[in-house]
Amino acid sequence: MTRRNPNLAKLQGGYLFPEINRRKMELLERDPAAKIIGMDVGNTTQPLTPFIAAALSRYAAELSTPEGYSGYGHEQGLNALREEIAKSYYRGLVAADEVFVSDGAKCDIGRLQLLFGAGATFAVQDPSYPVYVDGGVIMGQSGDFKEELRYFDGITYWPCTPENNFFPDLQTSPAADLIYWCSPNNPTGAASTKLQLQELVKFARTHRAIIIFDAAYAMYIQDPALPRSIFEIEGAREVAIEVNSFSKMAGFTGVRLAWTVVPRELCFEGGEPVITDWNRIMTTIFNGASNIAQHGGLAALSDTGQAEVQGLISFYMENAALIKGTLEDLGVQCWGGKNAPYVWARFENCSSWQAFEHFFEKAHIVTTPGVGFGPSGEGFLRFSAFGQRHDVEQACERLQKLLR
Amino acid sequence: MTRRNPNLAKLQGGYLFPEINRRKMELLERDPAAKIIGMDVGNTTQPLTPFIAAALSRYAAELSTPEGYSGYGHEQGLNALREEIAKSYYRGLVAADEVFVSDGAKCDIGRLQLLFGAGATFAVQDPSYPVYVDGGVIMGQSGDFKEELRYFDGITYWPCTPENNFFPDLQTSPAADLIYWCSPNNPTGAASTKLQLQELVKFARTHRAIIIFDAAYAMYIQDPALPRSIFEIEGAREVAIEVNSFSKMAGFTGVRLAWTVVPRELCFEGGEPVITDWNRIMTTIFNGASNIAQHGGLAALSDTGQAEVQGLISFYMENAALIKGTLEDLGVQCWGGKNAPYVWARFENCSSWQAFEHFFEKAHIVTTPGVGFGPSGEGFLRFSAFGQRHDVEQACERLQKLLR
Repeated sequence: MTRRNPNLAKLQGGYLFPEINRRKMELLERDPAAKIIGMDVGNTTQPLTPFIAAALSRYAAELSTPEGYSGYGHEQGLNALREEIAKSYYRGLVAADEVFVSDGAKCDIGRLQLLFGAGATFAVQDPSYPVYVDGGVIMGQSGDFKEELRYFDGITYWPCTPENNFFPDLQTSPAADLIYWCSPNNPTGAASTKLQLQELVKFARTHRAIIIFDAAYAMYIQDPALPRSIFEIEGAREVAIEVNSFSKMAGFTGVRLAWTVVPRELCFEGGEPVITDWNRIMTTIFNGASNIAQHGGLAALSDTGQAEVQGLISFYMENAALIKGTLEDLGVQCWGGKNAPYVWARFENCSSWQAFEHFFEKAHIVTTPGVGFGPSGEGFLRFSAFGQRHDVEQACERLQKLLR
Repeated sequence: MTRRNPNLAKLQGGYLFPEINRRKMELLERDPAAKIIGMDVGNTTQPLTPFIAAALSRYAAELSTPEGYSGYGHEQGLNALREEIAKSYYRGLVAADEVFVSDGAKCDIGRLQLLFGAGATFAVQDPSYPVYVDGGVIMGQSGDFKEELRYFDGITYWPCTPENNFFPDLQTSPAADLIYWCSPNNPTGAASTKLQLQELVKFARTHRAIIIFDAAYAMYIQDPALPRSIFEIEGAREVAIEVNSFSKMAGFTGVRLAWTVVPRELCFEGGEPVITDWNRIMTTIFNGASNIAQHGGLAALSDTGQAEVQGLISFYMENAALIKGTLEDLGVQCWGGKNAPYVWARFENCSSWQAFEHFFEKAHIVTTPGVGFGPSGEGFLRFSAFGQRHDVEQACERLQKLLR
């Protein structure tokens, strides 16, 4: 008889977004005319830019010609794209053959756990994007869920709050085999400083841990002093893997294109190079990203593409400024929104869900309760800046009416 | 210090295709004018058909318009595509919400192992497509590799040869939690009969095992009496998962689109529905197939698309008939090639690699040594029918000159 992977039973239900959807449905039943504005999901809304869409469309059309057709490519991605990522995105900080193109950062994070298997321990920012914890739990890298604490046993959670400048006290932290670190952060919008990342790399080097650095929002960094890649930090090549994506950069959330960098210097305890195993995993249970998407990625990294991408990013960052400005004018304490498309707002004396409820019921604005990303998100709401401008403006008006 | 997943060390190097490539390079160094014809890889060569390519191209172009843009979709796939697969491909044998769209059958097979985890045991056809064994080994479902036997400890291998009509003696077989079954088979080209699949389902029901049925070549079945889906077999819904793909059907090897069906009735030992866990896995570490590819899939399943697809399949099956006819005329015993795009040829008194060497050195034809798919493939070569017609014809001429 076939048993269920016992680790799946440890997982908590995908509670957050289904619960939000349930409440939306319920509201629309009570008030079918309600004009709900979603500021919850980090889903891009602006059309693909002309140059990039034309490249996708042209490549797809040419697949019907003998000259333009292509079947399986390398599982690691098109050479041209790997080279372009190394050259134009990383400016030579990494080599083309250290770049592995894929269909998504979330998918790569799922696969990365296979490098380490069930015995590995890990540390994670609290709050954080759910896939690090859930992926590790499925792989058997945790104990059971503790309902009262809302923590899994065996995982090291690093509370990251305004009080510690969204950075843990590493002096007092236990070691872990793996460290998931997301900067600019989803959900808090905090972008780690160079000094913080230097400390993180030092911690990893001291404990010989491996950092899995999620840089999916790196292109949203506006402050030139902030690192866009972990590989800008000296010594990172021996201790870090970087996951990155075209999703938020170029609006490819639906098109699906991402990459992971595994530097040659990165080794396991026994000295085995991690890149060799990653290559084996990617060639064994992956078969390459869509060739159409990869040609879109090439267009996105060209000069014309990058100019267009900057326009998209500016648009969303203007949304973020509108949201943050409005909330701050109304006396709400906010973080993020400057180098990330998320605004992290604190509501004193009420829980995340109470704050959610308030905006939802009184202004028909959907946010994400911060506690859904981890216990240290309690008392916060995440506002996503990925909306249509008209919706963002209207949401701001409603907030003003409600909070003034 | 961070340890390597110990299961990765058990894996054998991706030996087969790298070794073939090494020999190609060596030949071209010796004889730069050599015109090598590849009949080794199962990679599609014919352009996408006009209607399907137009749909891909049009959808990509429309992503640059406010009306046409789409960000993240459901991780499980577009509702329209799930419905079309259930309705037009399965003719109602499965429900739309049992269909999970993905980026590839190989990728799904990698993820499926997460349902069962490290403790599960499995049985597999010998010879077989490498991902079943390699994926299971990475997940910790095997012992060590036994060099002499070329078997992993702890895996049940079912020799499938012409002598047993490519079907194991299930009476004497031990039970296993999981059964990987590929029909039409890669590499042997054997398509299981209804009676064989009834036996397989019966075996699974008796032992309460789960069949992972790989139907990636189902559209190549020409004989209407042969089942295209495991769900045509009574009782299969309680014991089987089916993996399928647009790769070989519509030339989507590079475009990337596939699906997996998990029936509601399928449960683990403890009664938990497998579909719930599969949904959790797909929503946790996957983020949907490319929306462009999914719209191509919709076009491929339409009446016009299916007519085009039949043209593609006929083309490759004519290649298969040419290859098989030529070999048989020359006295070579062959299987497959009738309901599958692979011809499985036996060469008496010589090993797979000796036979490979003969065709490679004397005729510059690249085949795949059968032993690369498992010990029971020894003495066989796989000929792929996915070539250009001109290459196939020329290869047949060379075979005639060489063997006559």
